[in-house]
Amino acid sequence: MNFRTDLALERKEYIDKHSLDGIISHRKTVDGITVDTITVTDERGERTLGKPIGTYITVETVPFTNNSDLFSPSLYVLRDELRSLLPEGRDCVLVAGLGNEDITPDALGPRCISLLFATRHIPDSLAEETGLGSLRPVAGIVPGVLGKTGMESSEIISGVVKKIKPCAVIVVDALASRSTDRLGKTVQLCNTGISPGSGVGNHRRKISEETLGVPVIGIGVPTVVDGRTLACDILEKAGISGSLINKEDLKDTMMVTPKEIDALIERASRLIAMAINTALHPDISGEEILAVVS
Amino acid sequence: MNFRTDLALERKEYIDKHSLDGIISHRKTVDGITVDTITVTDERGERTLGKPIGTYITVETVPFTNNSDLFSPSLYVLRDELRSLLPEGRDCVLVAGLGNEDITPDALGPRCISLLFATRHIPDSLAEETGLGSLRPVAGIVPGVLGKTGMESSEIISGVVKKIKPCAVIVVDALASRSTDRLGKTVQLCNTGISPGSGVGNHRRKISEETLGVPVIGIGVPTVVDGRTLACDILEKAGISGSLINKEDLKDTMMVTPKEIDALIERASRLIAMAINTALHPDISGEEILAVVS
Amino acid sequence: MNFRTDLALERKEYIDKHSLDGIISHRKTVDGITVDTITVTDERGERTLGKPIGTYITVETVPFTNNSDLFSPSLYVLRDELRSLLPEGRDCVLVAGLGNEDITPDALGPRCISLLFATRHIPDSLAEETGLGSLRPVAGIVPGVLGKTGMESSEIISGVVKKIKPCAVIVVDALASRSTDRLGKTVQLCNTGISPGSGVGNHRRKISEETLGVPVIGIGVPTVVDGRTLACDILEKAGISGSLINKEDLKDTMMVTPKEIDALIERASRLIAMAINTALHPDISGEEILAVVS
Amino acid sequence: MNFRTDLALERKEYIDKHSLDGIISHRKTVDGITVDTITVTDERGERTLGKPIGTYITVETVPFTNNSDLFSPSLYVLRDELRSLLPEGRDCVLVAGLGNEDITPDALGPRCISLLFATRHIPDSLAEETGLGSLRPVAGIVPGVLGKTGMESSEIISGVVKKIKPCAVIVVDALASRSTDRLGKTVQLCNTGISPGSGVGNHRRKISEETLGVPVIGIGVPTVVDGRTLACDILEKAGISGSLINKEDLKDTMMVTPKEIDALIERASRLIAMAINTALHPDISGEEILAVVS
Repeated sequence: MNFRTDLALERKEYIDKHSLDGIISHRKTVDGITVDTITVTDERGERTLGKPIGTYITVETVPFTNNSDLFSPSLYVLRDELRSLLPEGRDCVLVAGLGNEDITPDALGPRCISLLFATRHIPDSLAEETGLGSLRPVAGIVPGVLGKTGMESSEIISGVVKKIKPCAVIVVDALASRSTDRLGKTVQLCNTGISPGSGVGNHRRKISEETLGVPVIGIGVPTVVDGRTLACDILEKAGISGSLINKEDLKDTMMVTPKEIDALIERASRLIAMAINTALHPDISGEEILAVVS
Repeated sequence: MNFRTDLALERKEYIDKHSLDGIISHRKTVDGITVDTITVTDERGERTLGKPIGTYITVETVPFTNNSDLFSPSLYVLRDELRSLLPEGRDCVLVAGLGNEDITPDALGPRCISLLFATRHIPDSLAEETGLGSLRPVAGIVPGVLGKTGMESSEIISGVVKKIKPCAVIVVDALASRSTDRLGKTVQLCNTGISPGSGVGNHRRKISEETLGVPVIGIGVPTVVDGRTLACDILEKAGISGSLINKEDLKDTMMVTPKEIDALIERASRLIAMAINTALHPDISGEEILAVVS
Repeated sequence: MNFRTDLALERKEYIDKHSLDGIISHRKTVDGITVDTITVTDERGERTLGKPIGTYITVETVPFTNNSDLFSPSLYVLRDELRSLLPEGRDCVLVAGLGNEDITPDALGPRCISLLFATRHIPDSLAEETGLGSLRPVAGIVPGVLGKTGMESSEIISGVVKKIKPCAVIVVDALASRSTDRLGKTVQLCNTGISPGSGVGNHRRKISEETLGVPVIGIGVPTVVDGRTLACDILEKAGISGSLINKEDLKDTMMVTPKEIDALIERASRLIAMAINTALHPDISGEEILAVVS
Repeated sequence: MNFRTDLALERKEYIDKHSLDGIISHRKTVDGITVDTITVTDERGERTLGKPIGTYITVETVPFTNNSDLFSPSLYVLRDELRSLLPEGRDCVLVAGLGNEDITPDALGPRCISLLFATRHIPDSLAEETGLGSLRPVAGIVPGVLGKTGMESSEIISGVVKKIKPCAVIVVDALASRSTDRLGKTVQLCNTGISPGSGVGNHRRKISEETLGVPVIGIGVPTVVDGRTLACDILEKAGISGSLINKEDLKDTMMVTPKEIDALIERASRLIAMAINTALHPDISGEEILAVVS
C-alpha cells in the first residue's frame, strides 16, 4: 500500500518490521516530552526510509488544541533540539514560512513569520539603547504559493539567500501525516531541508543545502491527513487490504483536519515561532521577545 | 450502521430499499440542473426519514470549486425553488446566517449575510430616488456561536422575530453530508426550518415555525463529512461491515473537507445570497443587486 | 464652533469657561492612572454638557499603541470603575459590541465580544467540574451594522433583552474624539448607555435604560477624530477662527486615526474585554479567564 | 512650507507659480478620463520637481468609493498608459506589491498581487490545452514590511530579479497625497520606479532601474494624507501661514483616510491588478482573466 506522509517517524514505524541498516534511532523523554531522533547514516538508510541522509527529530508536544501555557516544557525542548541542528556562531539566519496563508491547515509557515523576531534591520545602536543588547541578525520571508507568484518557493528563497548571505536557513511548513493520531501534537525538525512532499498545496520543490548552498533546517507540524491515506490506514488497522477500496470514493481532493484546526494553527505557529526566536536569541527572555513581536 | 447526514436526499437513498409510506419523491431537470423534491406527508414518513413533515428540495448545482458564472441556471433554479417555499406577499423577511465565521467550512451562513441586500432600513423616498422602486423590507442577522455568545442561535432569532415581526424567516447553514460526493455541489431547501443536526459546531437548537411562530425556510450546503461517517461509507461501498473498525481510529474530532474549501464557501455564499436576493426582490435585476451589495 | 465628540470630558473642558450648574466633577489618581468622574445632576447640567443625567467616568490608560502588560493598573482601575456602575447581584448581564467589524477603527465592540467570557450556556455541573465554581451568567452579542442587517443595533439588542431578561446591558463602542490627544489612551464609562453620536458608522440610535428597560452601561474608546473637527481644533489652538476655513476642504468623508490603529484596536479590545470579564466574574483570576477565552 | 506628497502632479501644481525649465507637461482626456503626463527632461526639472528624470502619468479615475463597473474606461485608459511605459516584447515581467497587508490604507500592493494573473509557472502545453494560447511569463511577489522581515523590499526584489531575470519590474504601492481631493480617485504611473517616500509605513528604499538593473515601472494610488500635511494644506487654502500652527498638535503619528478606505482599497486593487493583467496579456479578454484570478 502506497501512503503519504512527511514524517520520518511514520515511515520508520511502517518499515520497522523489515530492515534497519543505515538507520539509527533513539528515544528520550525530557520533562515529560517524548523526543525521537532518527539518523539516516548512509544510502541503505535512504533507500529504506525514503528520506535523505541526515537527522530527523520528532517532538511530541502537548496537543495544540489544548489551551496550555506557551512557556512550557514543549517550548524549551523544541528550542534545545533546534539549537542542536543550528550551525555555531551568531551570523545571520533566514527563516522562510512556506504554505498558503489563505488555507488554514497550510498557513503554519506564514503565521510563524508574523511572530518572528526579525532583527537584521535593527542597528546595534538602537538595540543597545532599548536594552536588548547586541542582536543576532535574523530575517524572515513568506514566499507565497506557486499559483499566485508564478515562482517556486525555492526560487524566491534562493534569490534572497544570494542577496543577504545567511549562515543557515530555517524552513517552516505544514506537513501531511499518515495518521490522525499525530495531527496537532507533533513537531518534526531535520537538517535536510524540505523534500518534495504532500502538504495541502503543491508548493514544494526541494529546499536544501544542495540547492541553497547553506545548511537548511526544516521544521514541520502535521496538520492534515490525505483522505485516501486516512481510509487506507483505517482499513489496515482493521486488517483489511486497501485494494478492496474503490479508488473513486477516495478522491485526492479531500483533506482531513481536526475540527479545531484554526486554534491548532494559531498555537502551533506561536510555539514554533517562539522556539525559533529563543533558539536564535539566547540572551533575551522569551517573555521579552513575545512582548516585542505580538 | 448509524451515520450522520443533514441531507434528506441521503437519508432517503439509504432507506429506499425499505419503505416509502408517507414519503413522496419527485425528480426533475431544469436547464441541466437536477432538482429532487421529497415530501414527508405524515408521521409514517417522519419515522422513516427521520425528518419532520414538510418539503425538502435538493438542487445539484455546478460544483462550487469550478469558477463559473454567477448568473447561470444554478442561480435561477435556486431562486425559483426558494420562491415556491416563500409565503405570498411582500412583507418583511428575516434572513439568519448560522455558523462560525472563524471556521471556514462553517462560515457559509455569516458570509451569505454579508452579501444580503438588506432593505428594511431604507426609506421608500430614498429607494424611489435611487431608481430601485418600492423595496420589500429584508433584514439579516448573524447570531454567532453558543460558545462566544452564551445564547442559542434560536434564542437570538426568536428575540429579533418578536421585535421586527417578519412574515417568514430564512435560515442559511452549512450541513454535514454522508458522502464526499455531494460536498460543494448540492443545495438543500426545506420549509421545516433547521432541525438539530451535525454541522461543524453544535450551534443548533430547533429553529422552526413551531419555535418562532412564523414559517421558517432552511437553506443548506453540505461542506463537511464527519471523519467517522466517511470511513463507514468507504467500508460499506467495499462491502465491509463498519463494525470491523476500531472506534478509536475514527475520532469525532476530525472533519473531511474539499481542499478548495475556501473557494467553495465563497462561491456557495455568493450563489445562495444572490438566490435569496433575487427571490425577495423580483423587480430588480441580479446584476443591479450585486453592484449594491459587493 | 460646532464640534463632534462623544467624550463628556471633552465637552466639559470646552465648557469650563462658562457655567457648571448641575455638573459635579472629580479627579483622582489610582496607581498612576487618572480617573475623571463627571456627574450630570439635573437638567441644567444636561443643557450645559449636552449629555443626559448620569455618571461619566474617563480613565486615562497607558497608550494602547505601547505594548504593555495586560495585567496592569489600567485593567484593575477599569474593572473597579465598571463594578461601581453595575447593579448589585449575580444576575445575567448582556454585553453588546457595537460597530463594524470590517472597518478597523470601528471594530472595537465586535472584537471585545470575541474575547468575552460568555457563560450563560454553561451548566453549573460543568462549571463545578472544571473547577470554575458557580458562574454568573453572561451573554454577548454583535448586532452588526444597519446597512448590512436592515436593523438598528438598538432593535436587535432590545429583542434579545426581552428574550433573555438580563439585569443590565453593557454596550461597548468606538467613539469619536475632538482631539487626537485622547485617541487610544482613554476609556469612557457611563451609566446612561450610548447616545446618538459620531463614530465612524451611523449605527447608533439611543441604547439606554429608557429604551431597553434595564440599566445600560456604556464603555467607549475614542479611536477617530473627524477630519473637520481636527482642522477646527488645530485652528482654534492657533487662535484662528474656524470660519476662515473652506468647508469644501474639510469633507465629512475623511477620518483621522493613529497610524498604529490595528494594534491600538487589538489592545483596547483586550483590555476592555478583560475589564468586563474580571468585573463580572470576581471569583476567577484574570489569567484563568484569559486562558479560556483566547 | 514643507509638505509630503508622492504625487508628481501635486508637486508640479505647487511649483507652477515658479519655474518650469526641464519639465514638459501635457493633459488629455480619453473617454472622459483626465490623463496628465509630466516629463522631467533634465537636472533642472529634477531640482524643480524633486523627482528624477522620467515620465509621470496621473490618471484621474472614477472615485474608488463608487461602486462602478470594473470594465470601464478607467481600466482601459490605465492599461494603455501602462503599456506605453512597458518595454517591447513578451519576456518575463515581475510585479511587486509593496506595503503592509495588515494596515488597510497600505495594503494596496499586496492585494494587487492576490489578483495578479501569474503565469511564469504554467507550461505552454497546459496553456494551449486550456485555450489560453501562448502566455507571457509573469511573476508576482509580496516582499512584506521591514519590521517583520528584517529586509528592505528592495533587497528581496533585487534577489528575485537576479534569480528569474525579468525584462522589467512593475512596483505597486499606496502613496501619500498632499490633499484629500485626490485620495481614492487618482492613479500615478511612472518609469522611474519608487523613490523613498511617505506612505504609511517606512518600507521604501529606492527601487529603480539603477538599483535593479532592469526598467522599473511604478504604479501608485494615494490612499492617505499625513495629518500634518492636511492641516498645513487647510491653512494655506485659508490664506494662513503654517508657521502659526503648534507642531505638537500635528503629530506625525496620525493619518487621514476616507471613511470607506476598505472599499476603496479593494476596488483600487482590482482595477490596478486588472490593468496590469490586461496590459501584459493583450490576447486574453479581461473577463477571462478575471474568471481565472478570482
